[in-house]
Amino acid sequence: MALSLEELARALGAELAGDAAVRITGVATLEDAGPEHLSFLANRKYRGQLDTTRAGAVIVAAADRVEHRNCLVSPNPYLAFARAVALLHPDRHPDRGVEPGARVAPDAQLGEAVTVLAGAYIEEGVRVGAGTVIYPGVYLGRGVQVGEQCVLYPNAVVREDCVLGNRVVLQPGAVIGSDGFGYARDGARQVRFPQVGIVVLEDDVEVGACTTVDRAALGETRIGRGTKIDNQVQIAHNVRVGQDCTLVSQVGISGSSTLGDRVILAGQVGVVGHLTLGDGVIVGAQSGVPGDLPAGTMVSGSPAMPHQDWLKVQGVLRRLPELRSKLREMEKRLTELEGSNQASGAEADSGERP
Amino acid sequence: MALSLEELARALGAELAGDAAVRITGVATLEDAGPEHLSFLANRKYRGQLDTTRAGAVIVAAADRVEHRNCLVSPNPYLAFARAVALLHPDRHPDRGVEPGARVAPDAQLGEAVTVLAGAYIEEGVRVGAGTVIYPGVYLGRGVQVGEQCVLYPNAVVREDCVLGNRVVLQPGAVIGSDGFGYARDGARQVRFPQVGIVVLEDDVEVGACTTVDRAALGETRIGRGTKIDNQVQIAHNVRVGQDCTLVSQVGISGSSTLGDRVILAGQVGVVGHLTLGDGVIVGAQSGVPGDLPAGTMVSGSPAMPHQDWLKVQGVLRRLPELRSKLREMEKRLTELEGSNQASGAEADSGERP
Amino acid sequence: MALSLEELARALGAELAGDAAVRITGVATLEDAGPEHLSFLANRKYRGQLDTTRAGAVIVAAADRVEHRNCLVSPNPYLAFARAVALLHPDRHPDRGVEPGARVAPDAQLGEAVTVLAGAYIEEGVRVGAGTVIYPGVYLGRGVQVGEQCVLYPNAVVREDCVLGNRVVLQPGAVIGSDGFGYARDGARQVRFPQVGIVVLEDDVEVGACTTVDRAALGETRIGRGTKIDNQVQIAHNVRVGQDCTLVSQVGISGSSTLGDRVILAGQVGVVGHLTLGDGVIVGAQSGVPGDLPAGTMVSGSPAMPHQDWLKVQGVLRRLPELRSKLREMEKRLTELEGSNQASGAEADSGERP
Repeated sequence: MALSLEELARALGAELAGDAAVRITGVATLEDAGPEHLSFLANRKYRGQLDTTRAGAVIVAAADRVEHRNCLVSPNPYLAFARAVALLHPDRHPDRGVEPGARVAPDAQLGEAVTVLAGAYIEEGVRVGAGTVIYPGVYLGRGVQVGEQCVLYPNAVVREDCVLGNRVVLQPGAVIGSDGFGYARDGARQVRFPQVGIVVLEDDVEVGACTTVDRAALGETRIGRGTKIDNQVQIAHNVRVGQDCTLVSQVGISGSSTLGDRVILAGQVGVVGHLTLGDGVIVGAQSGVPGDLPAGTMVSGSPAMPHQDWLKVQGVLRRLPELRSKLREMEKRLTELEGSNQASGAEADSGERP
Repeated sequence: MALSLEELARALGAELAGDAAVRITGVATLEDAGPEHLSFLANRKYRGQLDTTRAGAVIVAAADRVEHRNCLVSPNPYLAFARAVALLHPDRHPDRGVEPGARVAPDAQLGEAVTVLAGAYIEEGVRVGAGTVIYPGVYLGRGVQVGEQCVLYPNAVVREDCVLGNRVVLQPGAVIGSDGFGYARDGARQVRFPQVGIVVLEDDVEVGACTTVDRAALGETRIGRGTKIDNQVQIAHNVRVGQDCTLVSQVGISGSSTLGDRVILAGQVGVVGHLTLGDGVIVGAQSGVPGDLPAGTMVSGSPAMPHQDWLKVQGVLRRLPELRSKLREMEKRLTELEGSNQASGAEADSGERP
Repeated sequence: MALSLEELARALGAELAGDAAVRITGVATLEDAGPEHLSFLANRKYRGQLDTTRAGAVIVAAADRVEHRNCLVSPNPYLAFARAVALLHPDRHPDRGVEPGARVAPDAQLGEAVTVLAGAYIEEGVRVGAGTVIYPGVYLGRGVQVGEQCVLYPNAVVREDCVLGNRVVLQPGAVIGSDGFGYARDGARQVRFPQVGIVVLEDDVEVGACTTVDRAALGETRIGRGTKIDNQVQIAHNVRVGQDCTLVSQVGISGSSTLGDRVILAGQVGVVGHLTLGDGVIVGAQSGVPGDLPAGTMVSGSPAMPHQDWLKVQGVLRRLPELRSKLREMEKRLTELEGSNQASGAEADSGERP
């Protein structure tokens, strides 16, 4: 794809400064870019590279504009660049209809321009919306509903009756609707609690590779509109995640917990079951959340505490051996002092007795 | 499936109180249930909902029985409800024999009523027991043995020579028999130690989505009867897990460690290699087990310590900054005291010298 | 495979002591071995088993040599044994060319003696080197390049344009080239930053089951020659890992971080983004690395600190409740002392006033 800088400026709603006719065919970092590339400056730390880059044009904030460069000026250069990448490198999914070797149940309903590649398996009662791409090895169980413009990458699995909105993306090996982990005890033996609920992924949810979202025991597990889930995240049965949340890799959320909107869980965080985390909660990497968190809270640690407290605790933690030494030294001084006081008391006493 | 309350009571061995003829067609929570639903009360916290639920009948403990409701009285309402769900919502796996598009080696032996769906791949020398269901994308390597009434969900993989007992369940994307992680050093280079052992999953073992169980270097990795493994658990080569254990999501067990029976590892726990954990050990979420644990121990923390100790440590940990302040303040007081003592000692001295 | 002890000694470059003609057909542990087996002693803790084993021969270090046994003496018994296992139990991958039911794009280039099993899917523009084995359910996206003698186990996925060197192994369910987790904020909404880079796995890289390596946003994610990656490891976009590293199960490395050569990350370690870890860095299990680490550093803890410091901190940590008690007790003594000093000061004062 090739665009003039003028076309790019118009498409991005950016202000153009420089040669409107320059042809841009791709994107690159400031360091790697050539004259045919668009680049960007998001972190002012790298501002010096604006002098040395060979990029044909750069997206910058107004304050970082430079005279001798073709610039697209935008209040949010990273966002503008993301959009430019999408324009210059549009997704190139195969467009082959139902490829021979795909197995589609006779009663499945496929919308316009759906692609189903060989090796995909679509069960009875499935509905797939227009423009959705289904890669090899994908399995859609009985009665699954998939919206429009979704991309289901190779070997993603959606088990029976689950529902995906529009523009949902499943990276390779993602599993939606596996059985929740629920057993009743019968003495030592564990008896499966059949998981008869479903999973709902709302519009614009994206799910990482090998991430697993369990179906509900009863009712549904639900991920809210626009929430993005990284690779190898585990979401247990009956969890409810709000809108526009960010769940980083290797996070685990236990059963029946509820997250508000715009919650951010950093990598490897664990959340105990049956909790409520309010809107905008932020949890630091590797933390463990043992209790409810009100909206707007930022916590860290395992178990988690307010982030500011955690910073202070960490500051002292490293000095624990020092602290113990100090304590021991003080105890010695204290004992000496007590000794000398007793002695002087004794002296005083003896002095008093004539 | 529809059953009368009387039929349900008989099937569950529960005492019936109320209208024996009421028809039940499904299950729901107390909150969501309608007149056609069976519900249950497991947690007395929700006892108030017994007054407001629209459920056609509820399973309760004797103490929670209410007059105006159709009740099934059971000493373990959760277990009875789990069984009721299984009766009212029986599994509906496809029953299609070997579907065209499945690849089954000519010498593979399939029992009665085995289903193998299109896209599954069964290698030479495989044996599959009666009633087992094999979903699309499942791979069974050379010489694999699978018992009766197993369910192997889409894209589960069992590599060569591994053995699965009866009623084993593999959720989507589970991997059994991947190579153990073993390398010998040859200077800086790492030389693979060929992993020539196998994995054995005994009867009633259930394995979560994207969980991985590595084959042994020599001999076997073994998971005992009735043990349940959640999603994204990693079990390394030559590990031995006992019976009726519960391994929660994202747990990792390093090579050659041995777990007794009824061990519970909570989410994201890590266990170091070559350890022995006795029967009934319980390890708290996100803990790291660095040494052997005797039967019945409950531990927490990373590294783990007895759970009671860990609770006490956590109690103090948050107050570390306070503790340090206190220590500093005390040191100041101590120094003052020493100063005044020296001063008074000096006075006393000077006083003594005439 | 059967070899005489003499043939084994020659192949391994080991010194033979004993019966050169004894036939060895397999390997086993000292405990399990019979007369047809080769075994080895790597850990001197088990030296007693040299007396009781029924093994036909054992590989030992010179110092552990025993008279009454057929011995192969090697300076590195574990390495020698690894090689012996490879000789006696050579890999037995299917050798079937392109099996019917495999889908290979007409323009894909397959080298000599490549095996592609049914259910594998090879896109346009793919090149596969000689002797590589591609198992069922494997997906190679458009333009993927795979070297010689690779093994891609069932359901492994390599997305478009990624590059694998020679002798690369992907365990089942491994995912190479999934989209990196990158979004720009547009108010509350998250806008995907299209991930247009690739992943490069250099020669002799091995990747565990359900491990995920994300493609770069721009440029490449690269894993250096000989690096071994265990199961369920997550490597984010634009990460660079050096040569001969060891990444143990459930490790997570955040975006754009760089690891030197021979780095070892133990199980469940997390590394923050945009960091640099020098050659030979070692990180203890479950640690979290929040900052750069110079070459040769060994760290532990979450957040990580030098390992020696961490050991000392852990030593005190368990005694925190004790420390607090001590502090309280000392404060009491201090207060008493202050009281008695004031009192004696008061006495002294009163004494001074005539």
